[in-house]
Amino acid sequence: MNQTRVNLKAPEEQTKGSATKTLILEAALEIASKSGLEGLTIGNIAEVVKMSKSGVFAHFGSREELQVEVVRAYHQKFQEVVFAPALLKPKGLPRLNQMISSWLKMSSGGDTSSCFFISGAAEFDDCPGIVRDELLRSVEIWRTALLRAIKEAITEGHLKKSLDAQALLFRLYSIALGVHHDSRFLENPKCLVIANKLIKEIFAANKASK
Amino acid sequence: MNQTRVNLKAPEEQTKGSATKTLILEAALEIASKSGLEGLTIGNIAEVVKMSKSGVFAHFGSREELQVEVVRAYHQKFQEVVFAPALLKPKGLPRLNQMISSWLKMSSGGDTSSCFFISGAAEFDDCPGIVRDELLRSVEIWRTALLRAIKEAITEGHLKKSLDAQALLFRLYSIALGVHHDSRFLENPKCLVIANKLIKEIFAANKASK
Repeated sequence: MNQTRVNLKAPEEQTKGSATKTLILEAALEIASKSGLEGLTIGNIAEVVKMSKSGVFAHFGSREELQVEVVRAYHQKFQEVVFAPALLKPKGLPRLNQMISSWLKMSSGGDTSSCFFISGAAEFDDCPGIVRDELLRSVEIWRTALLRAIKEAITEGHLKKSLDAQALLFRLYSIALGVHHDSRFLENPKCLVIANKLIKEIFAANKASK
Repeated sequence: MNQTRVNLKAPEEQTKGSATKTLILEAALEIASKSGLEGLTIGNIAEVVKMSKSGVFAHFGSREELQVEVVRAYHQKFQEVVFAPALLKPKGLPRLNQMISSWLKMSSGGDTSSCFFISGAAEFDDCPGIVRDELLRSVEIWRTALLRAIKEAITEGHLKKSLDAQALLFRLYSIALGVHHDSRFLENPKCLVIANKLIKEIFAANKASK
C-alpha cells in the first residue's frame, strides 16, 4: 500500500492545517485506489482519519473538489513511480519500454490498487464536471508523454519510420486497459505474461531495418 | 436509444405486475447505459417511470437485485444485437469478424450508451457481491463465445494452427476496451478506424498458409 501514499514534506515543515490536509489526502488516495473515486465519501474518509465529517469538509469545498485533489495527488505519484524512472533510461525504445512495463506492473498490482487514469476514465466518461476535466488533463499528459517516447524511438532508429505513432499509442494503451481489466475484474494474473510477450512482438515487428 | 430497450412480450400479454416490472427495467437499462450501473437509484428510476419509490422498490428486493436484473436484461439485448446476427455468418473468421465489429460499433455508439460488460467491469472490479458475480458470468459467456469463434477460425483453416487462441482473445478484448475508452472518455471517434485497421492487420498476419 506504500505506493498509494502521497510523497509530501514531513508534517513538521508544514502548518498544522496543511499537515491535516495531507493526512486526509493520503487516506482518500488509499480508499479511492480500492473503491474508485466514486467510492470516496466525506464519511468514509472521516472514519479513517478519525475526524468529524465537518472537520474533513472544512479542508475541501465539496466532494468534487476533494476528488480533484485526489486526482492531482495520484498524478504526482504516477509521475514519481512510473514516469520519472523512465526518464533515466536512454531516449527511444529503452525509455518507452520502461514507461509501459512499470505502468502495467502498477495497473495489475497485487495490492488491489488501481490505475486512476484507467478506472477513473470508466467512472467519469459520462459525468461532465471538474473531476472528469482533471482526469482528462492527467490522461492527456500521460498520452502525450507516451506519444513523444514512440516518436523518439522512431527518430533514434529503434522503430521503423513508416510506423503510425498514433496507432501504436492506441495498441499500447489498449494493452494496458486489457491488463487492468483482466487482473482486476477477471482476477487472471496470467494476462501480464501475455501482455509483455505481445509488446515484445509488436516492437520486434516494427523494428527499423539496419 | 432503441438499442437500450428490452425486447419483451407486449404488455397486454403480461400480467399487470410483470408489465410494470418490464417498464421499470427498460427505464433502468436506459439510465444505466448513460450513467453506469452505479448511477442507478430507486429515486431516479421512480422519476422516469412516474411511480413512487416504494412502488419501484416493491418489484425488486433491493437496489443490488435491481442491478442484477439490469445486467440480465443487458445480456439478453447483447445476445440479440451482437451475438445472434454473428451466428448467421459462416463458422470461422466471418463469424469472428462479425462478432467483433458489431461489438465495437455498439461500444462506441454515438447515442452515449455504453457496453455494460466493459463499464460494469470497471465499476465493480473491487466490489464483491451479486452484481459483480452476475456481470462476471455474462462476461465469461461472451469471452467463451469469442474463444470458440477463434478456435473455429483455426480449425476451418482461416487462421494458422500455431496461433495462441488465449493471446488473440486478449488482443481483441483489449482493442474493444481501447475503443470504449477512446470514444467515451477521450471523445475521439477516430479510434474505431484505427481499431478496425488493426484487427484486419492482426487477422492478415495470422492467416493460415495455403
